[in-house]
Amino acid sequence: MAQSPYQQLEQEFRRLHAFQGAASLLRWDSAVMMPRGSADVRGEQLAVLDSECHTLLTSPKVSRLIERAQANQAQLEDWQLANLREMRRERDHAIATPLTLITRLARATSLAEVRWLEARQENNFELFAPHLEEVVALTRDKAQVLSQALGLAPYDSLIDGFSPGFLSADIDQLFKVMIRRLPNLIREAIELQAERPPLPIVGKVSLSKQRALAHEVMRVIGFPFDRGRLDESSRAFTEGVWGDVRIATRYDVNEPFTGLMGVLHEVGQAMYDLGLPAAWRDQPVGRDRGMALEESQSLLLEMIIGRSRPFLTWLRPLLEKHFGCTGPEWDVENLYRTLTRVRRSAIRADADELTYPVHIMLRYDLEKQIFEGTMPVRNLPEAWRAGFDRRLGLRPSNDTEGCLQDPHWALGQFGYFPSYALGSFIAAQLHETLRTQSEHFDAEIADGRFGGLFEWLRQNVHGRGASVGAQELIKDATGRTLSAAPWLRYAEAKYLEEVAS
Amino acid sequence: MAQSPYQQLEQEFRRLHAFQGAASLLRWDSAVMMPRGSADVRGEQLAVLDSECHTLLTSPKVSRLIERAQANQAQLEDWQLANLREMRRERDHAIATPLTLITRLARATSLAEVRWLEARQENNFELFAPHLEEVVALTRDKAQVLSQALGLAPYDSLIDGFSPGFLSADIDQLFKVMIRRLPNLIREAIELQAERPPLPIVGKVSLSKQRALAHEVMRVIGFPFDRGRLDESSRAFTEGVWGDVRIATRYDVNEPFTGLMGVLHEVGQAMYDLGLPAAWRDQPVGRDRGMALEESQSLLLEMIIGRSRPFLTWLRPLLEKHFGCTGPEWDVENLYRTLTRVRRSAIRADADELTYPVHIMLRYDLEKQIFEGTMPVRNLPEAWRAGFDRRLGLRPSNDTEGCLQDPHWALGQFGYFPSYALGSFIAAQLHETLRTQSEHFDAEIADGRFGGLFEWLRQNVHGRGASVGAQELIKDATGRTLSAAPWLRYAEAKYLEEVAS
Repeated sequence: MAQSPYQQLEQEFRRLHAFQGAASLLRWDSAVMMPRGSADVRGEQLAVLDSECHTLLTSPKVSRLIERAQANQAQLEDWQLANLREMRRERDHAIATPLTLITRLARATSLAEVRWLEARQENNFELFAPHLEEVVALTRDKAQVLSQALGLAPYDSLIDGFSPGFLSADIDQLFKVMIRRLPNLIREAIELQAERPPLPIVGKVSLSKQRALAHEVMRVIGFPFDRGRLDESSRAFTEGVWGDVRIATRYDVNEPFTGLMGVLHEVGQAMYDLGLPAAWRDQPVGRDRGMALEESQSLLLEMIIGRSRPFLTWLRPLLEKHFGCTGPEWDVENLYRTLTRVRRSAIRADADELTYPVHIMLRYDLEKQIFEGTMPVRNLPEAWRAGFDRRLGLRPSNDTEGCLQDPHWALGQFGYFPSYALGSFIAAQLHETLRTQSEHFDAEIADGRFGGLFEWLRQNVHGRGASVGAQELIKDATGRTLSAAPWLRYAEAKYLEEVAS
Repeated sequence: MAQSPYQQLEQEFRRLHAFQGAASLLRWDSAVMMPRGSADVRGEQLAVLDSECHTLLTSPKVSRLIERAQANQAQLEDWQLANLREMRRERDHAIATPLTLITRLARATSLAEVRWLEARQENNFELFAPHLEEVVALTRDKAQVLSQALGLAPYDSLIDGFSPGFLSADIDQLFKVMIRRLPNLIREAIELQAERPPLPIVGKVSLSKQRALAHEVMRVIGFPFDRGRLDESSRAFTEGVWGDVRIATRYDVNEPFTGLMGVLHEVGQAMYDLGLPAAWRDQPVGRDRGMALEESQSLLLEMIIGRSRPFLTWLRPLLEKHFGCTGPEWDVENLYRTLTRVRRSAIRADADELTYPVHIMLRYDLEKQIFEGTMPVRNLPEAWRAGFDRRLGLRPSNDTEGCLQDPHWALGQFGYFPSYALGSFIAAQLHETLRTQSEHFDAEIADGRFGGLFEWLRQNVHGRGASVGAQELIKDATGRTLSAAPWLRYAEAKYLEEVAS
């Protein structure tokens, strides 16, 4: 029997999914297993797979099939319709970035990355500036073409490449509330914490002990080791596809919680990927609903649950079992104070939960100005210093600790940063709903029972894949439009609480 | 500037090479790293990559380009001409096995494999017979089509799929000499060895000690760990492409040499792959010259060099260093006698160097008869027993130790077995030439200096890729046509020597 246009499309996207899955495994291998000298060979393989994906998405055949499938929409079920919509979105993104532009961007960003590393090393923005200008110019071209294809404003079309469903108007609205409330919140939290500083946790914890703890924590959380792995790399990350999800973390003998918190962060994302709808695993509608949602799952587990008293109550005996630590500095209350310490810092990657949004809001503002044409690249260092000072009352001592600290811009990843902040708002709103719907939520965590949490997430987030838009998904799950209010309620309760010390 | 048809072909085969390289990494990962539950996902990825390779090779575009490039041959250099010839060979093989036949064969062999495992377990050939008949029938169809495309006899066209350049007429000739000489050689060797049995080597050697030894041996041999890896799996194997070659072995605490000999075997092949011509690494002419040549490199290192007094003289102090063993059973002469022990055994995989060809010749005869139509599948068990008895004076006690012992036929790999024997003839002929050309050859090995060996192999074997036929390559390297005489001279010198005991 002849296949319908829609069925033929599923066939084509099944091929796409296999290419993308193979590419993901190749990236995992590069970061974790590959011999150092083989990067050239791997680069060639990945370039071919990427260009194959692009060729498939931009083929006249796929566009013709999409048109014909749309003409027969009436025969499709809801998930198929959603799948068709996602196919079209991926096609639009691919067509809007022709191979020539991709090639020019790849060349410009790989040069910019090298210069950025040098500039950061030498605290010399001038070395980086001309290359960043080139990347910005090319990204502006890309945004222009994307904008037309997607019917979005240029900067919004860049955001859409990471977190579809969020516009900068939405983000402006969320950040407006934050700007009004956050500075006071940070100040008061720091003052309160100064009254009851935690006992310092000193001494080394061997990597093998940290590894053993991480594996046990993952097992109890419910990570399926027959469908995934934990490895080590220079940075924490998640790779893979539904059915084979692999995370990596980085342990530090001097920092007993760095590795574990990295694991929680990645496990949050991994559980999302593993909980995607199996029946749609090789189709666009079976994928995650974008970076902001992925980040929300990571932050929910690492920040909101992982740095909470119930979680630490459960973790405490495991720390004793694996690390053999029993002093008063390892008491639950002291661990909690240690892991929720608020500090004004110039560096985003070191920032705590409370000051983190400040780092994001600064970058978001600068990005918007760059794409509105009101912020020349050369003005970035001073604009960064002034903006950071205004927002956090801190002036980075140099550009290395200022506008040169992140790789994102060198890599052309404009529109990426807001996902981090959106992720924390989503996480807090999901968490609030979870605790409202289950009065035993905290008790279950304190007991090491994570089944209820993940069952709810699977039903309300993971299992929905990309079948609805991000904002609709959040509204369905929590009964409300996404707002910053739950995050602010959560942050105030956590950081301004009165505790008998 | 417009690309010539030949240049366009190189472009197409570069894509093919990237797909094949990705598939090889996916197979490596399946055997070494993949979570057990992810086999379904991996199977889907590999099926897509394989079918992509097939589609590419059988596309009208590639055939058209091959025709046009052939019409302009005069403009091509030697390596390009050889590359074009190999492209055509790969295309012919692909076209001769249409996807429908591949699919039917894949289904039949995967069912046959399951039934073969059961049949072997229960020593019940009847369970397996109908499935083997199906596989034989489909393979016969495949051989028929291949035969026409390649201009070879049907069984020869199956051999061509593994070891191009060898016809069954060549193999018959080589085996004729062996049949005349080998039975006496085996009998005399066993009698001689009975007069001086080795002291038994008992006790366990931990896996970590065996691992450390294997890594040191590989380093001294010259295996480039920045371009490859050593891992562990349920069986020894080599995967990867030029520039990233990965081997695996299987250690056994009770058998201190199983893992190491597996390593030597695979390192032989890996050094071949790593020594292929870099400039042609992503083209058909840059590949190895077939299974027989690959096997020759493995056997040269594992059997001829690895089980020699010079090698064991060098290895001896490393055994002491890593295993801490110092008794008389660890003396060079005793190790040599242990590792060159000849025993009549029913099982090919356990066979020593001297009796191994007997196992191959039996299988080769039966395969030929099957494809000549004179050997019904149902007669295999009795034909096996009779043939084995006649050749080795040993009757397997049951079919599990008889015609059910190997997976090859269940998997449809007819024409594969002769490569093993061809590999040992080639290895011996290369070794004889090496020792004739360098009077210090043995002394260098005894000294742990492997540079001369691999320099010669790179120049005469590895670096030639697939630029000439297998038999021409051997003649160029050794000055003579391939024959069994060097192997017989080598075997007689090794196994019939008079040693003062």
